[in-house]
Amino acid sequence: MASSFQACAAPRATSERSLSTQYQRVRQQTDQLCAPLSPEDCVIQSMPDASPVRWHLAHTTWFFETFVLKPAVRNYQPVDPSFEYLFNSYYNQVGKQFPRPQRGLLSRPGLDQIKQYRRTVDARIGELLTAERELDDAILQTIELGLHHEQQHQELILADVKHMLSCNPLWPAYHSPRGNQNDSPAELEWIAGPEGVRSMGHHGEKFAYDNEGPLHEVLLQPHELASRLVTNGEYLEFVADGGYQRPELWLSLGWNTVGEQNWTAPLYWHQLDDQWCEFTLAGLEPLDLAAPVCHVSFFEADAYARWRECRLPTEAEWEQAATAPQVEPTGNFVESGLYHPRPARSAGGMQQLYGDVWEWTASPYTPYPGYRPPAGAIGEYNGKFMCNQYVLRGGSCATSATHIRPTYRNFFPPDARWQFSGIRLAR
Amino acid sequence: MASSFQACAAPRATSERSLSTQYQRVRQQTDQLCAPLSPEDCVIQSMPDASPVRWHLAHTTWFFETFVLKPAVRNYQPVDPSFEYLFNSYYNQVGKQFPRPQRGLLSRPGLDQIKQYRRTVDARIGELLTAERELDDAILQTIELGLHHEQQHQELILADVKHMLSCNPLWPAYHSPRGNQNDSPAELEWIAGPEGVRSMGHHGEKFAYDNEGPLHEVLLQPHELASRLVTNGEYLEFVADGGYQRPELWLSLGWNTVGEQNWTAPLYWHQLDDQWCEFTLAGLEPLDLAAPVCHVSFFEADAYARWRECRLPTEAEWEQAATAPQVEPTGNFVESGLYHPRPARSAGGMQQLYGDVWEWTASPYTPYPGYRPPAGAIGEYNGKFMCNQYVLRGGSCATSATHIRPTYRNFFPPDARWQFSGIRLAR
Amino acid sequence: MASSFQACAAPRATSERSLSTQYQRVRQQTDQLCAPLSPEDCVIQSMPDASPVRWHLAHTTWFFETFVLKPAVRNYQPVDPSFEYLFNSYYNQVGKQFPRPQRGLLSRPGLDQIKQYRRTVDARIGELLTAERELDDAILQTIELGLHHEQQHQELILADVKHMLSCNPLWPAYHSPRGNQNDSPAELEWIAGPEGVRSMGHHGEKFAYDNEGPLHEVLLQPHELASRLVTNGEYLEFVADGGYQRPELWLSLGWNTVGEQNWTAPLYWHQLDDQWCEFTLAGLEPLDLAAPVCHVSFFEADAYARWRECRLPTEAEWEQAATAPQVEPTGNFVESGLYHPRPARSAGGMQQLYGDVWEWTASPYTPYPGYRPPAGAIGEYNGKFMCNQYVLRGGSCATSATHIRPTYRNFFPPDARWQFSGIRLAR
Amino acid sequence: MASSFQACAAPRATSERSLSTQYQRVRQQTDQLCAPLSPEDCVIQSMPDASPVRWHLAHTTWFFETFVLKPAVRNYQPVDPSFEYLFNSYYNQVGKQFPRPQRGLLSRPGLDQIKQYRRTVDARIGELLTAERELDDAILQTIELGLHHEQQHQELILADVKHMLSCNPLWPAYHSPRGNQNDSPAELEWIAGPEGVRSMGHHGEKFAYDNEGPLHEVLLQPHELASRLVTNGEYLEFVADGGYQRPELWLSLGWNTVGEQNWTAPLYWHQLDDQWCEFTLAGLEPLDLAAPVCHVSFFEADAYARWRECRLPTEAEWEQAATAPQVEPTGNFVESGLYHPRPARSAGGMQQLYGDVWEWTASPYTPYPGYRPPAGAIGEYNGKFMCNQYVLRGGSCATSATHIRPTYRNFFPPDARWQFSGIRLAR
Repeated sequence: MASSFQACAAPRATSERSLSTQYQRVRQQTDQLCAPLSPEDCVIQSMPDASPVRWHLAHTTWFFETFVLKPAVRNYQPVDPSFEYLFNSYYNQVGKQFPRPQRGLLSRPGLDQIKQYRRTVDARIGELLTAERELDDAILQTIELGLHHEQQHQELILADVKHMLSCNPLWPAYHSPRGNQNDSPAELEWIAGPEGVRSMGHHGEKFAYDNEGPLHEVLLQPHELASRLVTNGEYLEFVADGGYQRPELWLSLGWNTVGEQNWTAPLYWHQLDDQWCEFTLAGLEPLDLAAPVCHVSFFEADAYARWRECRLPTEAEWEQAATAPQVEPTGNFVESGLYHPRPARSAGGMQQLYGDVWEWTASPYTPYPGYRPPAGAIGEYNGKFMCNQYVLRGGSCATSATHIRPTYRNFFPPDARWQFSGIRLAR
Repeated sequence: MASSFQACAAPRATSERSLSTQYQRVRQQTDQLCAPLSPEDCVIQSMPDASPVRWHLAHTTWFFETFVLKPAVRNYQPVDPSFEYLFNSYYNQVGKQFPRPQRGLLSRPGLDQIKQYRRTVDARIGELLTAERELDDAILQTIELGLHHEQQHQELILADVKHMLSCNPLWPAYHSPRGNQNDSPAELEWIAGPEGVRSMGHHGEKFAYDNEGPLHEVLLQPHELASRLVTNGEYLEFVADGGYQRPELWLSLGWNTVGEQNWTAPLYWHQLDDQWCEFTLAGLEPLDLAAPVCHVSFFEADAYARWRECRLPTEAEWEQAATAPQVEPTGNFVESGLYHPRPARSAGGMQQLYGDVWEWTASPYTPYPGYRPPAGAIGEYNGKFMCNQYVLRGGSCATSATHIRPTYRNFFPPDARWQFSGIRLAR
Repeated sequence: MASSFQACAAPRATSERSLSTQYQRVRQQTDQLCAPLSPEDCVIQSMPDASPVRWHLAHTTWFFETFVLKPAVRNYQPVDPSFEYLFNSYYNQVGKQFPRPQRGLLSRPGLDQIKQYRRTVDARIGELLTAERELDDAILQTIELGLHHEQQHQELILADVKHMLSCNPLWPAYHSPRGNQNDSPAELEWIAGPEGVRSMGHHGEKFAYDNEGPLHEVLLQPHELASRLVTNGEYLEFVADGGYQRPELWLSLGWNTVGEQNWTAPLYWHQLDDQWCEFTLAGLEPLDLAAPVCHVSFFEADAYARWRECRLPTEAEWEQAATAPQVEPTGNFVESGLYHPRPARSAGGMQQLYGDVWEWTASPYTPYPGYRPPAGAIGEYNGKFMCNQYVLRGGSCATSATHIRPTYRNFFPPDARWQFSGIRLAR
Repeated sequence: MASSFQACAAPRATSERSLSTQYQRVRQQTDQLCAPLSPEDCVIQSMPDASPVRWHLAHTTWFFETFVLKPAVRNYQPVDPSFEYLFNSYYNQVGKQFPRPQRGLLSRPGLDQIKQYRRTVDARIGELLTAERELDDAILQTIELGLHHEQQHQELILADVKHMLSCNPLWPAYHSPRGNQNDSPAELEWIAGPEGVRSMGHHGEKFAYDNEGPLHEVLLQPHELASRLVTNGEYLEFVADGGYQRPELWLSLGWNTVGEQNWTAPLYWHQLDDQWCEFTLAGLEPLDLAAPVCHVSFFEADAYARWRECRLPTEAEWEQAATAPQVEPTGNFVESGLYHPRPARSAGGMQQLYGDVWEWTASPYTPYPGYRPPAGAIGEYNGKFMCNQYVLRGGSCATSATHIRPTYRNFFPPDARWQFSGIRLAR
């Protein structure tokens, strides 16, 4: 739910020219994701955790205006003074925020005005990056941060639109149906990871959020990770075995949630005339048994693992696997245009670490030893959410390939299901 | 909140030709009211009692399709089978309804599709009315009923849009500001009404809802009614006298509501820098002290009357006044384009009985003696709401002049404030 | 829920001596009703509408201390200054009240201390009534009022204890089981009432609450009343005919309540192994088909009447029947010790008007024409509850025979079921 | 909130004789704690997290009946079959449970009956322990577990009674006021702890809960712990510095909680006429500035530490300090009869590790590597609560000296304040 976008202590100064190109590319990608959406689609907030698309479009722009243009441009005149309040998400040190659960009550400024806001800020950022005078490193770093922030919101746009469309009994599609994939999934292998004292966390000059550091040592126990994600077919066995009716498989809070929210399957599964289907961004489709299970909560991931007499990986175990020499950070990312996880290829070795679905870990989201958030409003983004959330790793089919890293820590509360989240087993 | 649109037992058969003209006029009026609205404006449901404009546009069309075209056209093919469920308001005998509080979760069908739905049904109704064969009286009566139903929703559109815009801290306007009116209001006179046994309720062949009949006798006590509505200036005295802090002035439920909802003034009043303002459909304006107070609940109307050592009229008293020989059903209706009440003119006699604001009466909304709702789904519209609501009379600045009658009974719960509702005193 | 205990404008001055006797008798009756209860029974508040017995015992005593001793005794020293706050129910003009829903959080003062409080105030009232000096009429009237107030709370004690015990899966009994009554009920006859202009409301010098007056004229339509109450057997037919599954039988608010609260039968009915049972103050018993149905809400009474193609009586119709020359205000009152309604005897004529169960009327609880509450805190008791409640008439098996009158108006919200309330049909 | 009482894998078999003595001692201690309470005090449940004392008394007895007598006694006849349901807390594998939030709705069985239940079970356990035949180790271990379980509930009784009494505006006392202690607190020193790979967790044959093991290695960073607890005086500086008004000091969830629950100080602090007071089990007392701050949540502990530019200890750091050779597990436990924390003595070195207040750690409550809950219902007690809770260490003034250990892990959600919980700083 909470975005995290703080540069690490000493990132490499990116040159203005390449940053300008990067800026245009990321901002256009947002526009492309919104191209299939009508003005009506962009207004609705289907639950308190989600936001209207028009809000995402404005807020990411507000970020550049607030944290780049205001400090960098002398006597800066804001595009609209009311936007500071309207499009602030949760930065107490910037000022008061329009209440999050009421974001869906606003029809004005309309989508056209918000697009105009984007274009105006884009032009001003463009001027800044092409001006004669050299920019402070801090400004360049904040622009880079803003682009990663925007990529996080691209992913949220897909998740929020999917949730909004899922509330509609017509099950409307965001894009055209993809072909059905009925391959059988790759065999599941168990792959041993390293043990003993190991390094963990971000280091080096490339961009990372503050919560990925500092680099520190951890002690790993002997363990093995599954070579691929849990599939829909495997998860269906859990459902069929009464998984949602057996309290002994669940954490106590998870069992309460099952009861209160009447969970009987993953978020977008529907049983129609004895046929299991899944709502996707391409509309309602028959459940692909070979594809990874998606839109499960931590509670479900944990219960499933217990039922299999396994457990979830810790984030340290995951990071070791993801930084192994032979592993490439490639996978089914947003650039594939599928917006849905796909079955593991049958090649051997560790698969699907990146892309497809975010992988729930067993690790509560806590600060690394020695972590200190940076000063000022930017410091609010990560540290203050380190409570009652769990870490997810590896990115998903809604994540940009240019956004993910082995040290990347995503986090959500244990009952969250509307993100593209799935399961890898450990033991 | 609840619409009421049942024809009385024996309405006059309107000829097809004049009905066709009337149909076009009423449907176009709806379109005109929506002309200033963007697609974004038409999607939002700002509270459970309100509905999105796109829903109003579709539901009124659904009414004609369900209650006219389906019974009248052989082998009728619905425009879209899902609309029967999506746009049913509360007719259990038609079938299940999409949950009312979730109307704001739907972006599809979009505004353009809904407008297309309206045009298609308009064309089919047009064919029906111009076809060779003569139509049943029942069908003609239901068309007339549908037009009155549509007029009720025109009024709801204005009230719902006003509420939605009022949630926006930018206080956007629906239409251009009208000139400020700072006349002093007419003097308030007390006018005695008739007493003893009198007739009440609808009779004759003209259209009326079922709840306006049957004609029956009532016993009136001696009484007087105020010659005009309570003004903002008068109501401000109540506010200034601590009206909202004095429990002894309020019904117990009203006092609870004051506390729970933090009421300190009528719904759209705001005190900015010691200046009282009022949110209107033309945006935020200084409070016009001469204009009638508007957007007060029954609880506030009742407390104000108690503070003045008066009371509210009963609906029988109001109807006697409104059927007096010299009274004309004219006033500030929606056709004036003001969408806001205006001060009483200084001429003598009873004023403002019609238009400006709906007048809360002291009468709980109950069936008249001998009332029976008609058979079938149409019978659900009025009778089932006769509980915990109060009757309002006279229409408002959002009501069409062709929609109101002396016997017209509007009704809302005692805490409702988002309608154009005000106060006339009695004693 | 709300008590009503205001003397009418000019009650007869009761002599000190007889008042003293009456005082002792009423107060002892309260003690007797509490005799079967343990200290634990007296602490619990099983829902916000109910109060702990220890609170009833203290509040009724507080009433005498606040409204009699404080004004009547020079330099009066309260038994405990904190009681003014702790045991004030809803009298804003006396001062702040301890929050009603938290009455069940208090274990101190304990039951013994509260009994001691009762004895101390009893002694002081006794001194007052036997002192040499003659008391003001106002004081005597307030003592009489306090005794009627206490009788209302006696009835609430039985209803609240019944509700509290019903929450216990052990279904404990308050008193010993009474014998099962399996008589067949009397035949139901239809008895025509008077029509035209008639007098209604309290007059004369005997005690009555303020809301029973003033005496005024009403216009009655032709009508008939059922000669006896609806029985469990008759109501069971409604249940068996799908009464709780058919929205067309219900008021809209009633239907919502059925769904939200999962109503499928009257409050204390339970179906155990295909046998209908009823929780009573004597524990769980087989349902007596001949006895009057009890613990139904207005919504259920109204739906049942609609299903029978009848309606509920108005309070004017009921009062005419109850003041007919041949009718005696006798019946199954609390003095019988049954604490449960019993079948109608098979004699002809109007039966069960008094006692057994309170009879829901079709009349919203509104002020009679010309009604004005008295000045001061005492004026808060009746007038401020005249909203969203319905009138019940005739007393119940939990009402004292010395407490009821033909003009007595009890009132509860339409969803209230924990009182001893039932149904008489009209048409 | 959740009790944890599972024996470790292989505890030492305690001899029947010494266990019998221990059983009597622990059970009597419960009775002594309840001696000052009236039957009324024992019925009330003042919030969903708390339970009535009568429930604690019955549930701890139910534990022995369910987990010892039923398996150990052939053809065991339960004292009352309904108790299995009524007094089961959360053991799904035993059967359904009476809903936790409704424990305060039950007046029966009354306190006397529950005491009788205790005596009956005590006698049967006594017979079991003095019988000829030798008991299984498993039975002996479960009895020992039951005694630790009972001690946990002794602590809950004090915390729950304190909360219940605090809801009463009379602020009643549980015991006589203790003398005021106005010593100045010991100087705070910083004491370095060990670093590198260390052992952690329970081992050996003495009793411990399952969640204290298995013994495993952890990696400690360089760190220092404060030599004593944070005092009221120190915490008051935080309050005076606007600690509860500054969002930058708080976790995001904590800041939400501050706003929703209107926190302005620790749970039982009250500012009366500019004097800070604290509600204690001896009634309302002036705030003792030298005593440890108590009844703070994790959120408050964390915010306070951030304000001091420190942090909370991890549970590994705490356990290393608590197992240092010179440290004795002595302190201000329940046996002192104070039921309130007291100032640190001015001697040097590490102080107050045990007793006074539970110390919030920075560690989310998670399973140790290799942890597996035992099979059967007993396995439900610890594992299923390992989510969204934080570990507390060291026991409090409400803990028995015979109940605490260096490896003991208590746990509560981060907003819980009604336990005797306080703060030790780390850096």
